[in-house]
Amino acid sequence: MKKFINTVDAFLGESLAGFAAIHNDIVSLGETGLFVRRAALATGKVALVSGGGSGHEPLHAGFVGKGMLDAACPGQVFTSPTPDQILAAANAVGGDKGVLFIVKNYAGDRMNFEMAAEMREGPTATVITDDDVAVENSTWTTGRRGVAGTLIVEKILGAAAERGASLERLKALGDEVNSRTRSMGVALTSCTVPAAGKPTFALADDEMEMGVGIHGEPGRHRVKLASAKAIAEEMMAAVLNDLAGAGFRDGPVILLVNGFGGTPSLELYLMAEMAKTELKRRGLTLARGLVGNYVTSLEMAGLSLTVSAVDERLLELWDAPVKTAALRWGC
Amino acid sequence: MKKFINTVDAFLGESLAGFAAIHNDIVSLGETGLFVRRAALATGKVALVSGGGSGHEPLHAGFVGKGMLDAACPGQVFTSPTPDQILAAANAVGGDKGVLFIVKNYAGDRMNFEMAAEMREGPTATVITDDDVAVENSTWTTGRRGVAGTLIVEKILGAAAERGASLERLKALGDEVNSRTRSMGVALTSCTVPAAGKPTFALADDEMEMGVGIHGEPGRHRVKLASAKAIAEEMMAAVLNDLAGAGFRDGPVILLVNGFGGTPSLELYLMAEMAKTELKRRGLTLARGLVGNYVTSLEMAGLSLTVSAVDERLLELWDAPVKTAALRWGC
Repeated sequence: MKKFINTVDAFLGESLAGFAAIHNDIVSLGETGLFVRRAALATGKVALVSGGGSGHEPLHAGFVGKGMLDAACPGQVFTSPTPDQILAAANAVGGDKGVLFIVKNYAGDRMNFEMAAEMREGPTATVITDDDVAVENSTWTTGRRGVAGTLIVEKILGAAAERGASLERLKALGDEVNSRTRSMGVALTSCTVPAAGKPTFALADDEMEMGVGIHGEPGRHRVKLASAKAIAEEMMAAVLNDLAGAGFRDGPVILLVNGFGGTPSLELYLMAEMAKTELKRRGLTLARGLVGNYVTSLEMAGLSLTVSAVDERLLELWDAPVKTAALRWGC
Repeated sequence: MKKFINTVDAFLGESLAGFAAIHNDIVSLGETGLFVRRAALATGKVALVSGGGSGHEPLHAGFVGKGMLDAACPGQVFTSPTPDQILAAANAVGGDKGVLFIVKNYAGDRMNFEMAAEMREGPTATVITDDDVAVENSTWTTGRRGVAGTLIVEKILGAAAERGASLERLKALGDEVNSRTRSMGVALTSCTVPAAGKPTFALADDEMEMGVGIHGEPGRHRVKLASAKAIAEEMMAAVLNDLAGAGFRDGPVILLVNGFGGTPSLELYLMAEMAKTELKRRGLTLARGLVGNYVTSLEMAGLSLTVSAVDERLLELWDAPVKTAALRWGC
């Protein structure tokens, strides 16, 4: 296993210590449990708390800050955070207006966030993201997996929360954004979880896993490596047909080309160009684009394409100022 | 070769098209040659033009925009841009105040930027960056290589240029920042140049290349993989001893932990924590930190550590607003 690491046990803690030190103007570590919270707590608003297994950085800790999350709970690599962790985060940042949990649709995450919500005194609500069109059920999932579209939900809800939206309003808005958002991924290589010490799966030199999950879960099929254009066509067809089936056939969209951690920037932008062509061919308008490593799978070579059907109201929330470690504009 | 690619010939052009489309609020492609320039040209200031072989993204095109570069010339992967390309960029963005070229110290880059400067009518000056302490001469270099410290030079000069600094002042400031900046890299794996189709070099499963260049050039030695702490200690000793030899033994520094493209964020921040400890042990103050993929080597697993000795005046320029594809704060 080739990693910059001291010991498996110290891996996450040492990394979070570095993250908090580098971004101490934006975040600090929880005093009473393993979570990342805004350095300057925001009061008088609904608190947004997310989390999940580590290994997907910058999701979620990199999205804590003004205009986005109030706290994030990192579990061990590809392992759900514990209910205690989540409760500590909710108690640290939550006030009278309540706490909204944003949870990717995996059985472990849902269970632990649900337990934390039950333990928490005061109002809570939960938005579940399930944007991955690749498969209906998966290794750790009933229903679709929550993947990179979660970033879009967190950004838009973050802006609305900052403006004083109520818990009920945020819950409805989060469900709406999720219902407008679809993703699909593809892997060229596996990643290696530190505690496992070896690659999660094996792909031949000429193979790719189409529809892969962000933990390396199987996708739709394992096929021969194709051209970037052919890969983009297959992925965009899956994403856009599913969106069309839900009634989103035209209008403006946000396109997210998300690297899984081991794909060079040149290739991500090349795939953005291919995806843009597919949008145009179907009469959709590229209103905003975001390209980079945002919801990763450690060092996996691969990427996902996410399309979110938006309108003026949602775009205005997307454009609102945000100041986090990984997403920053307007301030 | 596992890449998101259509053809080797179309690779760079398709990627740049995607880059320009996604960031069309910040950049546009040159009309008369292959370069990236600010979408809204800035007048009445010295124009900053950089460039070099592609494969190091976001350097340099990702640093074009308000508060940083006016234009960047991407060569083919790991290949210098041509004099014509550089001249076209300089002519597109340069005005009466002159053009400052920022060039990493590689023979091909220096030669081609020099030819462009000779062809350009009007005042020009050139800042050469050579921050890599690993080796004195290298495959394509007489003297030290220019690597990730180039980002710090470009950011600080960008801020000063925006405020109206003269060509002479910017040349002196650029040389000064370069003289205060040191870097060293380490590779765990090679990258694969598309046109070559196979890895540039081979490392055994338990080996690393200490002092590697950003094109995979040999470093100081090939040794057994060590702990993150031991790697950080060796790299920081090389960087900080060299800085100390130049008179920079204490005071505030900017720390850049730069991923080469294939290293997960968790590992980069863990290395930031290790580097921070080394700074503290030697009595240096971590004034600012930046962690991420900024000067890459395609999909290479590895990273570099850069330390720049600063003062209040340089920190103020570092903190000044910047709006580029890859670096953005304050606006």
